[in-house]
Amino acid sequence: MPVRVYYEDTDAAGVVYYANYLRFCERARTEWLRALGFEQQALLAAEGVGFVVRSVRADYLSPARLDDGLTVVSSLAGLRRASLDFRQEIMRDDERLFVAHVVLACVDWRRQRPVAIPAAMQQRFQTYAIPA
Amino acid sequence: MPVRVYYEDTDAAGVVYYANYLRFCERARTEWLRALGFEQQALLAAEGVGFVVRSVRADYLSPARLDDGLTVVSSLAGLRRASLDFRQEIMRDDERLFVAHVVLACVDWRRQRPVAIPAAMQQRFQTYAIPA
Amino acid sequence: MPVRVYYEDTDAAGVVYYANYLRFCERARTEWLRALGFEQQALLAAEGVGFVVRSVRADYLSPARLDDGLTVVSSLAGLRRASLDFRQEIMRDDERLFVAHVVLACVDWRRQRPVAIPAAMQQRFQTYAIPA
Amino acid sequence: MPVRVYYEDTDAAGVVYYANYLRFCERARTEWLRALGFEQQALLAAEGVGFVVRSVRADYLSPARLDDGLTVVSSLAGLRRASLDFRQEIMRDDERLFVAHVVLACVDWRRQRPVAIPAAMQQRFQTYAIPA
Repeated sequence: MPVRVYYEDTDAAGVVYYANYLRFCERARTEWLRALGFEQQALLAAEGVGFVVRSVRADYLSPARLDDGLTVVSSLAGLRRASLDFRQEIMRDDERLFVAHVVLACVDWRRQRPVAIPAAMQQRFQTYAIPA
Repeated sequence: MPVRVYYEDTDAAGVVYYANYLRFCERARTEWLRALGFEQQALLAAEGVGFVVRSVRADYLSPARLDDGLTVVSSLAGLRRASLDFRQEIMRDDERLFVAHVVLACVDWRRQRPVAIPAAMQQRFQTYAIPA
Repeated sequence: MPVRVYYEDTDAAGVVYYANYLRFCERARTEWLRALGFEQQALLAAEGVGFVVRSVRADYLSPARLDDGLTVVSSLAGLRRASLDFRQEIMRDDERLFVAHVVLACVDWRRQRPVAIPAAMQQRFQTYAIPA
Repeated sequence: MPVRVYYEDTDAAGVVYYANYLRFCERARTEWLRALGFEQQALLAAEGVGFVVRSVRADYLSPARLDDGLTVVSSLAGLRRASLDFRQEIMRDDERLFVAHVVLACVDWRRQRPVAIPAAMQQRFQTYAIPA
């Protein structure tokens, strides 16, 4: 997924503010889901489930700057009954600027309790999961 | 209300990003309401009403910078049956950096329709409204 | 310019946070400039000039929501020696959600003083300016 | 350091957006430095050095919500020649909502290269570092 760096993403150090890489990653995960046919709003309405971030392991290798054209490369690194692992890299051309592992839990939205990923999603995800 | 400028508020131009002054103003309006005894969450739960921004008229006079200690001065410039006018200034010591007029409408949250400001709030607000 | 609404753009009211419409508008202005062949970083490096927001007049007509696909329509509504007026509308299909007039001043970056828009830009802009 | 949750911090899921906990943490680190007598702007101007985030390890235990009054508890968990480890917890009363380890590198700003933490800072920090 392509991401353009705008003023809003940068800070007074002249680079992308560190928390904003996580915004780029979330956009990419949302588009990844959308590409598989799942919209988060619809999922919540139909199944009463949603995904929440449980943990982030992020390494900042090199800074992104204003006007940079970046690419977020997302892969499903792990799939369990009630959670997912994403590996996400942010690239500027061939240079890797940022890499993160993000664990998402599937939760029953009303009770905010972990719940199994809906079967239709599980099946779709299995096609994409990379053996760890 | 005091506001400190952090990296998150600035952009690559070295100053506070223009949309973020509106975030400072919203914080100040929330604290203004809280000081009068109203919490927005509670208001929504109890009365089913909330405030939404209808218009903003903002002038940027001079930029705020990283580490600046600012003050948001808020006053109620107008009070109608179903809406409020706030005048908000952002100061750095005696220097006025930003001034805005913000019109907020009171809405029935479920139907997203304009509705009269609850009587208890109207009464409290009347004490603070500055004749236009 | 198309804009997708992500979680980062929304707030607990379930809609796009009011300051974030201004982020969408800034992205659109940047892309508008880029489409005319101007990059803000390059402009600053080559000419020592940049554009700063002087005023915003914004009306919020209807809220945007998570997963919405929006379009920002930008037009140059005014062009003066040292400043520009943009009119920007945010649409969801045929529905107008937000409209803003944004005045940008051209400034000498080092001295933060108003300065004439570089001649090459003036010429390019004149083709696009809509008589007020 | 106390942090209040405003609309800007939340998302359509009704909770604080996951990247924004990192903003709270950065505010707290800045205030931690300020409390020791160091301003980041001044540091950059005087010594030409600044701190950049190298890695984040974050666990999300329970969500924060609109109007919550939170506390960010920061401690210096490690101190090396050219980098620092912070451990930061975000609490709502006695409940721990979020915990992160953040590694910051000291860099020569012009060359963006790692550099030893200035001696005066090292000395101040040593008093506060918790043996790992």
